[in-house]
Formats: sequence, C-alpha cells, structure tokens
Amino acid sequence: MSTSKTIFFISDGTGITAANVGHSLLTQFPNVQLIKQFRPFIDSLEKARAVVSEINSVYQKEGEKPVLFTTIVDDSLRNEIGKSHAIMLDFFHGFIQQLETHWQISSSSRIGGAHALENNPAYNMRIDALNYTLSTDDGLGYQLYPQADVILVGVSRSGKTPTCLYLAMHFGIYAANYAYTEDDGRYFELPPALKKERHKLFGLIIAADHLHAIRSKRKPNTDYASLARCQRELKNMNDLLLREKIPFIDATVRSVEEISTTIVTQMGLTRRDV
Amino acid sequence: MSTSKTIFFISDGTGITAANVGHSLLTQFPNVQLIKQFRPFIDSLEKARAVVSEINSVYQKEGEKPVLFTTIVDDSLRNEIGKSHAIMLDFFHGFIQQLETHWQISSSSRIGGAHALENNPAYNMRIDALNYTLSTDDGLGYQLYPQADVILVGVSRSGKTPTCLYLAMHFGIYAANYAYTEDDGRYFELPPALKKERHKLFGLIIAADHLHAIRSKRKPNTDYASLARCQRELKNMNDLLLREKIPFIDATVRSVEEISTTIVTQMGLTRRDV
Repeated sequence: MSTSKTIFFISDGTGITAANVGHSLLTQFPNVQLIKQFRPFIDSLEKARAVVSEINSVYQKEGEKPVLFTTIVDDSLRNEIGKSHAIMLDFFHGFIQQLETHWQISSSSRIGGAHALENNPAYNMRIDALNYTLSTDDGLGYQLYPQADVILVGVSRSGKTPTCLYLAMHFGIYAANYAYTEDDGRYFELPPALKKERHKLFGLIIAADHLHAIRSKRKPNTDYASLARCQRELKNMNDLLLREKIPFIDATVRSVEEISTTIVTQMGLTRRDV
Repeated sequence: MSTSKTIFFISDGTGITAANVGHSLLTQFPNVQLIKQFRPFIDSLEKARAVVSEINSVYQKEGEKPVLFTTIVDDSLRNEIGKSHAIMLDFFHGFIQQLETHWQISSSSRIGGAHALENNPAYNMRIDALNYTLSTDDGLGYQLYPQADVILVGVSRSGKTPTCLYLAMHFGIYAANYAYTEDDGRYFELPPALKKERHKLFGLIIAADHLHAIRSKRKPNTDYASLARCQRELKNMNDLLLREKIPFIDATVRSVEEISTTIVTQMGLTRRDV
C-alpha cells in the first residue's frame, strides 16, 4: 500500500470550487502526503469515462481507493464518475437537492455555470475593479480617488498592492493605495487628495524585521532595506495612523485573504462578488 | 412571506470557501432574489450567539427559514449556530468525517486554517508569483522571462494582465505577458527574448468588435480604439500565432477563471496553490 494518497479534483467547469473546498478540507489533514490530479472541463461522457479509467488505475496501483473532490452538475456525468473505485465527495449535488427541497424550486442544472462568463454583471464589476486598481496603483492617479471604495495607506512593501488586487478581483471592490517611503521625499502626513477621502482610508502596518526581510530580498544592502530605515518609517507611519484616527491592521501574520476580509468587514464595504 | 431569501455565509475563518461554494450553488438558482449576509471570523461562542439572534430575527421577519452556508471546524461553535431557526448547509463537517473514516486519521480541527498564513509555503509561492507578474507586466522586464512558467502574448487589451494576475494569485504560476499594438511600433513578430522562450508562449485572441468596445471605453474616438485598427491588429496577431505555432484561446466569451484553467491544463503547468 502506498504512503501517499491520490486526490482527483473533477469538474464539468473550471474545478475552481472543487479545488477551493478541497484545499480547505485538506488543511485539516496536514500530515497526509498527497498527489493531486486536476481534471477540469469534464463535460462529456467520453471524458468522464477516461477519468474513470485513470481513477481505477490509481486504485489498482495504490491498493486504496483514491478520493474524488467533485463539482458536477449533470446527473449522467456524475453517475458515470460514480462508477469508479473511489470515495466521491460531491460538493454540489446534496446541497442543490437541499436547496430545491427547502425553496421548492428546481435548479437549472447548467454545466460549469459557476465560473463562466455569460455577461455576468458581477464578473464585469470585478474586472472593472481590477482595472481600476491597476491604474491607481501606488499613488498614481490621484484624480481617481473619488471613485475608490477604499484607499490603503502604508509604507512601501507592506502588502498594499496584493491586498488591493485581491479586493478587486474577488470582491469587486475599487481599491486604491498610497505608499509612504522616505525616498519619495514624502512627509508622513496626508496629502490634500487623501484628506478629502479620509473616511475611505485604511492602514497596513507590518513588523520592522519582516519589512526589513522583504525589502532586503528586493534591494539587498540598501538604505531603503536597512532595519533602521524600516523602523523609522514604520514609527512615522504608526504616528500618522494614530494622529489621523485611521483604522489599520497588522499585515505581518495575516494572509491577503484575511486582510481583505477584515477590511471589508471593518469598513462595511459592499461585496460585489456573489 | 418575503419574496427575497436571506443567505448567511458563516465561518470561523475568512468565509472565502463558504462564499465560493455558495456562489457556485446559487448559480443553479438564477431566478431567486437573494439578500446575502457575510459573517466571517465567528470564532467565539459569544459571536456565534450574536449571529444566531440575527438569524432568528430574519426568520421571524421573513416567515421562512434563512439558509446558512457554513464552514465551521469547531464542534461547539457549529452546534451553537445549529440551534438557530435555519437550514444549515455545512461545507466542511460531513466531508471531514468522510475523510477521517476513509483514511482512518483524525483531523486537526484547526479553526480558520484554510486561508490563514502560518508560514504556508504555497501562500508564499503565490505572493512571489504575484510580485513576479507585477514586475514583468506588459513587456517590462525581458530579463525576467527565463523565470516565467508561461508568457501570454496578445494585442493590447485582450485580457493578458487579469489572466496573469489570476494565474499568479491562485495557482502560484509565474506568468509574464507581452503586448502587441501598432502604437509601440512593434512588428507582429517574435522578438529574440520571446524566441528563446517559445515553448512558454500562449496566445490570447478576442473578437474585433469586443476589443473595439473595450478600447473605446478606455480611449474613446481614437485610432487605437477604432474597429479598423482592432481588426488589423487581430489579423496580424492571428497570423503570428499560426505562423509560429503558438497555442491560443479566444478570450471573448470566457472568464479569467476559465482562460487560466485552460492555460494550466493545455500547457501542463504545475499548480502551486493547493
């Protein structure tokens, strides 16, 4: 019997939902060695049968039933996959049935609907928000601040850009950012363009040694990356945030997902993603 | 009875998984009017009880049990939420039990593990990939092409940048891009920096009227946005892709998620996300 376990992520669409839930479930089993096989766009019986053969070969080789994480809407495709020698965790079927029963409404059984385009207004909002973020990134585009839902402020390399991109791409939120660093000759105070939008400001702070490490990776052995400079900028940033009563979060030990969710919750922003 | 239905997305972490699966399920019920309430970071009994009160108020007001989409790892928190007058669709509990039974391993019951940081190497890969994409965006950084997993080529505004950002942020893939447009005086041929990396190239094409609409939104009534110019550039792009035997996809009717998943599958790229 093999020590590593094979997981198949199978979907008639992109499989992004299957990967997302699967990843979340697997974090509960941190010590299991996994081989991950992604099989998106399984939208015909022919493709389904090919995957079933693959699954059965793995079963024969490993001597243990592989696990399938599936999001398949179509009954005949799901039944076909279900014929394999595997443990099938279906992230859609049972829940759709529960909703149908509770709401007394039939579902549409559209294949691959979740991440498809189809003139989806939420999708267009997210792409517009992404373009907005790209055009306002890093202090460019003062004149676009009035359209922002939120403007992140923080020292250079404290995680503003990844957070803005995440807010835009996932929540459809117009997120701008404004970077502080001594290099720009910027004083640690609010320029007029930000003062006008004070209610939209949210600060990111970060531990000095962490910032020092990040900057050193980018520009090693420079004044910009030095611990003393990082400490000084962060002290000035912190003073600014407190003085101006700007809410902020410590980005040091938080993922972009956690920072983004916290910002949305604390600022009461409207998500346009779902 | 109310005509719209309230959905609560409840998690002891970011709730991103709950939102993702919930969104996918709800695409199967396109005609249902929904009110969505996001309640992330419900990580104490006190917070859980406050949410239960909210849920019960909605039940009283609407006369129909609201639906809960939950990803709660902790048993006592889940039990508390389960006391509310609601239909609870739990995206974790049952599946974790199935995996525990099948693998004969206990899960770790860590709260909020899915999108937390915790020196997660996959997370760091994704952020590194994102920084890579940002620094190579739009033809900047030829010297970084050797590190790319994939290099997207296409005319200006065909969707390269959002796709690269998605590939980076979600799959941890190093995605660069190279834009063609007549404005740059660029001939529609491969520069030496791309010839060297020919096996990494992937093309995006797009319908001329769609490109015309996108460019017109950005730079209305310019030669750049004109339909004739869009048609000419796309013709030249198409010729280049065929001549150089570069695989490509039509981005017109596909979402960034679909384009990205297709690229990963077709190019056989290794996902570093899960």
